[in-house]
Amino acid sequence: MRINKGVEWAAHACAVLVPLWPDRGLSLAALAEFHDVPEPYMAKQMQTLSRAGLVEGGRGRSGFYKLARPPAEITLLDILLAVDGDEPMFRCTEIRQQGPCGSKPRDCKLPCNIAAGYARAEQAYRDSLAEIDLATLSRSVAAQLGMEKVIQAGQWIGPRVRSRG
Amino acid sequence: MRINKGVEWAAHACAVLVPLWPDRGLSLAALAEFHDVPEPYMAKQMQTLSRAGLVEGGRGRSGFYKLARPPAEITLLDILLAVDGDEPMFRCTEIRQQGPCGSKPRDCKLPCNIAAGYARAEQAYRDSLAEIDLATLSRSVAAQLGMEKVIQAGQWIGPRVRSRG
Repeated sequence: MRINKGVEWAAHACAVLVPLWPDRGLSLAALAEFHDVPEPYMAKQMQTLSRAGLVEGGRGRSGFYKLARPPAEITLLDILLAVDGDEPMFRCTEIRQQGPCGSKPRDCKLPCNIAAGYARAEQAYRDSLAEIDLATLSRSVAAQLGMEKVIQAGQWIGPRVRSRG
Repeated sequence: MRINKGVEWAAHACAVLVPLWPDRGLSLAALAEFHDVPEPYMAKQMQTLSRAGLVEGGRGRSGFYKLARPPAEITLLDILLAVDGDEPMFRCTEIRQQGPCGSKPRDCKLPCNIAAGYARAEQAYRDSLAEIDLATLSRSVAAQLGMEKVIQAGQWIGPRVRSRG
């Protein structure tokens, strides 16, 4: 199984918006250019994030996208679920009810042990992603990039920052 | 993202083979009938498990499948990786190297923090699945089914058990 590629783009776009919280943001064109990705592709990710309530704005040529919540309240799990959907990875089809020795539905009120094992692992996956919020992520990205690179990005982003009014 | 449906079938087939370890097993036809699934579909899962070294046998009309290792040494992770493949769910495409402020490859020796976050979660997912072995699973399945149901399954499986020689 593979996560939708858009998750990676969406997470990077959100990371760029962190330092601009709470009232500033970037146009779709700037977000696309910063990541060197076609604007329609970036538009798709931003619309998905917007529908999930993680970013807001973006309408029209003068519009811009900004985070919709404090960076500390948006996690890598939120971005995954927004872009990739929140269906479980493993879906139990109640195989235990099939065949000559199948269990009756009334005896299947507890989840099948096999399904429960995969569900528990999926919960561990989600719990791990829920621990990483954008504020923390942004600090670790900055630390990894180093001062020089962060200043370079700031110089590119600075003149392109948009805010209301 | 969704796990290959075959994982569920493969896990159930392995669970049925647990009590027959180490020297006995079931034919493909019996495995398919027990789960009420078309034989070619069950054959596909068993061949995949066989290639991964989790089951062995199965060749010819008189053949049968048996576990290839002690049940305590086969986990839900082994079955997932055998059937669904062991590619990571999240694949980093080095977005940080793109665009006007992109990092140089030589500055990207450590994994991108976003990719590292998703990789850490995936490790938590795998670690959780690796904790559940077929011996443990089989005991919890039996406990959940109850004595009456286990005996019923044993009566169906008994006459169909095959062994070498």
